Amino acid sequence: MNENNRPVLAVVGATGAVGTVMRDVLSTREDVWGEIRLVASARSAGRRLTVRGEEIEVRELSPEVFDGVDIAMFDVPDEVSAEWAPVAVERGAVVVDNSGAYRMDPDVPLVVPEVNARAVRQRPKGVIANANCTTLSMIVALGALHAEYGLTALRASSYQAASGAGQEGVDTLHDQLNKVAGNRELGTHPGDIRRVVGAELGPFPAPLALNVVPWAGSLKDDGWSSEELKIRNEARKILELPDLRVSATCVRVPVVTTHSVAMHVTFEREVNAVRASEILRDAPGVVLYDDPARGEFPTPADVVGTDPTWVGRVRRDLDDPRALELFVCGDNLRKGAALNTAQIAELVAAELSA
Amino acid sequence: MNENNRPVLAVVGATGAVGTVMRDVLSTREDVWGEIRLVASARSAGRRLTVRGEEIEVRELSPEVFDGVDIAMFDVPDEVSAEWAPVAVERGAVVVDNSGAYRMDPDVPLVVPEVNARAVRQRPKGVIANANCTTLSMIVALGALHAEYGLTALRASSYQAASGAGQEGVDTLHDQLNKVAGNRELGTHPGDIRRVVGAELGPFPAPLALNVVPWAGSLKDDGWSSEELKIRNEARKILELPDLRVSATCVRVPVVTTHSVAMHVTFEREVNAVRASEILRDAPGVVLYDDPARGEFPTPADVVGTDPTWVGRVRRDLDDPRALELFVCGDNLRKGAALNTAQIAELVAAELSA
Repeated sequence: MNENNRPVLAVVGATGAVGTVMRDVLSTREDVWGEIRLVASARSAGRRLTVRGEEIEVRELSPEVFDGVDIAMFDVPDEVSAEWAPVAVERGAVVVDNSGAYRMDPDVPLVVPEVNARAVRQRPKGVIANANCTTLSMIVALGALHAEYGLTALRASSYQAASGAGQEGVDTLHDQLNKVAGNRELGTHPGDIRRVVGAELGPFPAPLALNVVPWAGSLKDDGWSSEELKIRNEARKILELPDLRVSATCVRVPVVTTHSVAMHVTFEREVNAVRASEILRDAPGVVLYDDPARGEFPTPADVVGTDPTWVGRVRRDLDDPRALELFVCGDNLRKGAALNTAQIAELVAAELSA
Repeated sequence: MNENNRPVLAVVGATGAVGTVMRDVLSTREDVWGEIRLVASARSAGRRLTVRGEEIEVRELSPEVFDGVDIAMFDVPDEVSAEWAPVAVERGAVVVDNSGAYRMDPDVPLVVPEVNARAVRQRPKGVIANANCTTLSMIVALGALHAEYGLTALRASSYQAASGAGQEGVDTLHDQLNKVAGNRELGTHPGDIRRVVGAELGPFPAPLALNVVPWAGSLKDDGWSSEELKIRNEARKILELPDLRVSATCVRVPVVTTHSVAMHVTFEREVNAVRASEILRDAPGVVLYDDPARGEFPTPADVVGTDPTWVGRVRRDLDDPRALELFVCGDNLRKGAALNTAQIAELVAAELSA
C-alpha cells in the first residue's frame, strides 16, 4: 500500500501489444491504484511510457522490483510467468497472470469477474489466472445464458484476429496487405497469394491477407490445436462444468483486433430466442446488437476498442428447442487480455483495501 | 445435336463472374459438345469471347437462341431463370439452372454428381438445379461420410468469399483493400475502418476489408439468413434426408474466391478419425490435406482455382464418439457453380448421346 492506503501495482510486460492496451485501460478506468510500476525485459528497461497521464520509466524485471508491490499483473510468455510469478508472490504480491502457465492448475483460480468473481479469493498459490483471449471473447455471454438455462454443449468456430499472435501478428498482416493491395488478379489462381506474400509469414503457418487459416497455437493429441483445447478446458473450469461437451475449430482471419465466434449452444432446458436476447441485453459486460433487418449484428470493425462482449444473430435451432445459434465479437486485447486482468486486479485491490 | 451427333450447349449468363469460369471449365474438361452458344443480356450481346480456343460472338437472350439447343446452362438472377428456363425447355432444351429459382421445387432434381447422379433422370419439368455455392463447398465430403456412417446432424460455420456476391463483391473487396492498405493504425479503434472505407460497401452490409461480416443473403423468419436456410434445405434434398438436423451461421470474410466451412457433423454410428480420413481420401472429388505437424490444412489461397473439395483438420469429437470436426475449402466459382453445372450437363449429354 502507498501512503494513501492504496495498493501498489506492477505491470510486468508493459511494452507489448497487451501492455500498451493495459496502460490505456489503467488510464481510463476508475483509478484505485497508489503507485503503478511498469516492468519489462532488460531490452525495454529505461523507456519512458505514459500511464494515468504520468510518464514512468520502465524498470527491468528483478526480484527487487516486487518489493512493496501488492498486486502484479503478468503479460509475458508462459515460461517467464512460471519463473517469475513465484518470485513476485515470495515478495508479497498477489499475481494476476495472463499466460497459459497457471490456467489449468487446480490451485489457481481462473477468473472472469462477470461469471465467477467469488473464485478470486481461493488462491493458495497467491496466483490468479486470466483466461485465453478466445475463451474471453465468448464466456461472458455464455455465462449469462448458462445461469438461466444450464449449458450442456458448446460447438464453436472462431474468426481470430492477427493481434492474438501479438504485435508480430499485426505487423505481418499489415505487411502482407501492402503486398496484395492493388493487384486485382489475386485470389483467382492457386498459389498466387503465396507468390506475392513470399516467405514472410510471421507467426502464421500460411498467408493471412486474402485468406483464412484454420490453425492457432501448437499441435496437441489427435489433431487438436492448443487453442481449441484451451476453449474447452477453460470454459469447463470457469463455468464449473467439468463434463461440459465442448468442441471448437479455431481459424485465423485477416482482422487486426477483435475475435469473433459462431456458437451452437445446447442447454438443459428449452430456450426461447426472445427471452435469451433479454438475458443477454441485461447481462453485465454484454451488448446485444441484433437486428439484421437494420443491418445490425456485431463485426470486428465496430467492436474493436470497446470493452463488452457483443452478441448478435441470436436464433433458436430449427430442430432442437434446447439449442441456440449466436455470433459474438470481443476485443481480444481488451476483454480478451488487459481489461479482464485489470478487473481481476481490482477485485483483489478491493479485498486488500477492505 | 450437331452433325457429329454431339449435343449443342447454350451458356446463358456467359459474361458474369461464373460465366467467365464456365468458359474456362468448358475449355479444359473433356470436350463432349458440338456447338457452344454464348448467351447474355442485350447489354453484353455482340461481345466476342473465347471458349475451347475459339472466338464466339455473344448472342442476346431470346426464344430463338434456344432452337436446336440440347442443353442450356443458366447462370442468371432467380427471376430471369424463372422466366426463361421454361422458354428454353419449350424449345427442346434440358435446362441446368444455377439460380435459386428451382432448387426446392419437388419436380426439379438438385444434383451433385458425386453424391446423387442418378437423380438427374427424374426431371419432369425438363429442369435440373445446381446447388448453392456454400452447400457445394461441403456436400461432396459430407456425402462420402454419410454413405459410410449415416449423417444425423450438421452444425456449420462458413467463411465465405467475396465472389459469392458476384463480380461486384470482388471489386468492392479490392477497392476497400486499396483504401486500408498502408494504414498501420487501422483496426484498433471502433469505426476507423468504416471511416476509411466510406459508404461504398457494394453488396455487403458492412466493410469487408479487415473485417468479417456475419451475414449473407436476405432476412428470413426468426433471424435466419436465406444463405443459412439454403444450406439446410439443399443438404436435406441432395442427401435425401428430409429430417436431417442442420444449423448454420454464414459469415463473409475478406477472401476473393473459395468458401471455407468449419463443420461439426454427427452420425448414426461411431466414427473413427483414421477411417473417416481414408473415406475422404478415396472419395471422388475430395482431396484430404490434413497433416498439421507439417502445416498441411486447406486454406482458400491454396484451394482457389482447383476443382475438388479440400478437407483437413479431421478430428473425432472428444465427448461424442459419433461426431467429427472438420474444415473444408471449395472454390465457390468452380465446384460451387460452373464446374458442378458442367458436370450435370455432361451427365445429360451422355444420356442424350446414348
